[in-house]
Order: sequence, then structure tokens, then C-alpha cells
Amino acid sequence: MLTKKELKAYSADARENYLPHISIDCVVFGFHEGVMKVLILKMKDEAAWYLPGGFMRKTEPIEMAANRILKERTGLDDIFLQQFHVFGDPERSKEHFEMYKDMLPAAQNWFANRFLTIGYYALVDFSHVNPTPDELSETCFWCDIEEIPDLKLDHSLILKTALDTLRLHLSYQPIGYNLMPKQFTMPELQKLYETILDKKLDRRNFQRRMLGFGIFNKSDEPRKGGAHKAPFLYSFDTENYKAALIEGFKGGW
Amino acid sequence: MLTKKELKAYSADARENYLPHISIDCVVFGFHEGVMKVLILKMKDEAAWYLPGGFMRKTEPIEMAANRILKERTGLDDIFLQQFHVFGDPERSKEHFEMYKDMLPAAQNWFANRFLTIGYYALVDFSHVNPTPDELSETCFWCDIEEIPDLKLDHSLILKTALDTLRLHLSYQPIGYNLMPKQFTMPELQKLYETILDKKLDRRNFQRRMLGFGIFNKSDEPRKGGAHKAPFLYSFDTENYKAALIEGFKGGW
Repeated sequence: MLTKKELKAYSADARENYLPHISIDCVVFGFHEGVMKVLILKMKDEAAWYLPGGFMRKTEPIEMAANRILKERTGLDDIFLQQFHVFGDPERSKEHFEMYKDMLPAAQNWFANRFLTIGYYALVDFSHVNPTPDELSETCFWCDIEEIPDLKLDHSLILKTALDTLRLHLSYQPIGYNLMPKQFTMPELQKLYETILDKKLDRRNFQRRMLGFGIFNKSDEPRKGGAHKAPFLYSFDTENYKAALIEGFKGGW
Repeated sequence: MLTKKELKAYSADARENYLPHISIDCVVFGFHEGVMKVLILKMKDEAAWYLPGGFMRKTEPIEMAANRILKERTGLDDIFLQQFHVFGDPERSKEHFEMYKDMLPAAQNWFANRFLTIGYYALVDFSHVNPTPDELSETCFWCDIEEIPDLKLDHSLILKTALDTLRLHLSYQPIGYNLMPKQFTMPELQKLYETILDKKLDRRNFQRRMLGFGIFNKSDEPRKGGAHKAPFLYSFDTENYKAALIEGFKGGW
């Protein structure tokens, strides 16, 4: 929470540099070895948790703004963020309005504005990224998806919508390029899907359907070592993978 | 195109009532008996075509704004509009900026603003709806999808993105509830898919896959009349259909 003096400075700067009424919030899902987490922040002087979010510069392209905001809040760079929904309930930023309304007249008070927020999401390997808080937040950390506290504003809804969208996207788009090692087995890939969907999948159905999408190269050499029959190794066929990201899976219609 | 006087009045009213920097554009696809059309407007005193669009009232929920705008521009009511993307290129409204910049100083000129636009789309039976132009537009009509003229601003991109999204949605969500008669045959439904995808589909694959989604009730009575074997009639199982709209098709993962 900002002090009165900080709010005044923040508001003056924001009016000068940012578009009013529009914000961006980022849902960064982290996956590693069968565990799903979400990146959240705890603000200074507030017992309150948020998704990393911020505002758009006046002439900044929207995708650049999303990446800049995520970098400023968390230190994360080069993350592929995907736009998924605009949240436009007129009451959605009411908590901030109430928090700050007595500190500054509405005309000067940035948080007297109504804000629509554009939701972006990403899925990364959380063992590769080290979030760091900025000056506004006390901590910035990977929270287990089962243990997310109540989030401020409508951030719980934004998180839920992002997770629903991610799960729906599994049906028609490939996933995992930045999460799997260069070569992997089908059971390893299945683990990723099971973690995101939070349910067990049938092994044979998974493999048949997955291989039917035509986005893999099969290695000639099975993985060595281990007492059991060596499993086949696959890598993504990057060309077909990219095409499927744009057009959806073959064997759609 | 507005005259200087009209621009002045329009801008004053807009500053009073609408959120700056945000607009909404609607892509309404129309289907009827194997033909796809799109609803477009021709503005008065401009040889220019647009998608129906407009601005959000200061305290209006976003979905209500989309429906109100579509109704004001085209007379269409009770259309299920689906949000699909925000277009945020800082240069996207440049044509309007250039068109009006010499008529009014920037501080009073609504079109000196940068606008992000939120895209909504819908798919309706065009034989059921009669579009009517509002006071800003000369005509408002169903244009064959093969014959769409160049649209102003980034509206060609918005239309293309909406069509890509609609086609992608076919892979994981049901469609057609408001387009098919109460009872229909699988070849009739296939025609809808072929029209949207603009390609022929294999009859047997289509039926097997479609029926696998579990969103149909099969009638005990085949359709009567005709020289050939009577085709089976189906209707949508509304409960399963609605569930699949939210969760995606069963037989996803």
C-alpha cells in the first residue's frame, strides 16, 4: 500500500506516462517435474497477494507492455505471454478505489479510475527462473497451485480463467516446447498434461492421440540404462509444432 | 466522416460519457444454407467500410457495451457475442487521427486518442436478422465472405483474426445451436462446418467424430419422404452442449 506522499508521486507519474483505465495482469504458471505453481506477489504494507500487473505506456504496443510489466515486477525476461481475456467489470478495482479515495482528490488520484485489465498467461519451467520483487512488493514467489491464498481485486477470477484457458488450449494446441528436455519419453510428456489437468490419463490413449498430431520426431535410439524395456525418445518437430500453434492440431476438422 | 461541427459535438459527448482509449468492434458472421457472410457498414460521406464498433460508457460492464454497440449500429439484438482478442497496435487508429486532426485541437478531439479495441464475434443465421444502419452509417449489410472490400483501420485484421478463432473453436467447442433447425441430419450439420472451414470434409470421419462428442439426441424416427434411404435425425442435447461450451469436448484429454 502506498503512503499519501507516494500515491501523489505515483499518480502524477502515471497520468503523465500511462493510458488511464487499462491495466495488464500476468498469470505465470510454473511447471517442474510434476509440480504446478503460480507466480504471485505480496505487496509492502498490505497483507495482500496479487498477480504481477501494471499499466501501459501511452504509445507502447500491448504485447511489449505485458512483457515489460512482468519484467519490472518479477525480473522475468523473454517469457512468451499469451493474451487470454479482458476483465471489464466496472466494480473490479473497487478495493483500490476504497483504499486510496481519502488520500487524494479523484482528479489527481490514479486509483479513482476504473480499470479494465487485459489478462496474459505463460507456462514456464520454474526451475529456470528466479523471480525478484520490485520496490512495490515485499516478496515475489512461486506458490503451489493448491495453496494459493485469496488474491486481491478480481485476481482469483483472473487466475481461474487463465487455468481454464490453459486446460482448454491443451485440446487443440501443442504445449511443452519450453518445458520438456530436448528429448523425452511419452510418459514424461504425459506427466505434464496430467499435472496441468490435475487428473490421471490413460497411457495408451494419450500416446495414440499425441503421436497422431504429427508434431514429434522419434529418435532411432531408445534411452539407455534402466532395468525395463528402454522407452522411445521423442523431440518436437519444431516446424509442425509452430504450424499447430497457429492452425490448431491436424485431425481437427 | 463527420463534419467539423459534428466532430465537435461528438467529441464533447464522448468525453462526457465514454472511456477514452478503449473501443469495441464486432465481427458478426452470418450463415444460411451453405453461405457465409459478414456484417459490415459503409459510413456516410466516406467510401469506406467498417465492422460495427463503438465506445464503452464510463460505468458499463464490458459485455453490455458490446451488445449495446452492436444494437445501436445495426439493430441486432440478443446476439451472443464472444470476446476473442484485444488489438493494441499504437498506430491502429492512425487513419482516424489523420482524418480529423486538422478540424479540432487534440485536447478536444476524441479521435486524437489512441484506441485499443476489444474484438467480439458472433455467428448467427442471417435469414433471421435484418440489419439497419444508424445515423452515422449509410448502409449496413451482409457481405459475402468472398467479397469483403478493404476495411478501414485494422478491421481487415480483426475480421481475419475472428475467422481464425472461429475455425479453431470448431476443434474443441460445439457450434450450431442457433443455426440448425430443431432436428437436422448429420450431412446438414457437416455443411455448416464445411462452410465455416471453406473445405470439404470426409463424411464418415465427420459423423464418427461428431457423434463421439455426446452432444446429440438421436430421433427414433428417420426423416420421411425422398427416394433414398431416410437419414437419421438429430437434435442437440442442450445440457451436454452447454457443458461442452464451457469445458470443451469430452474426448479432449
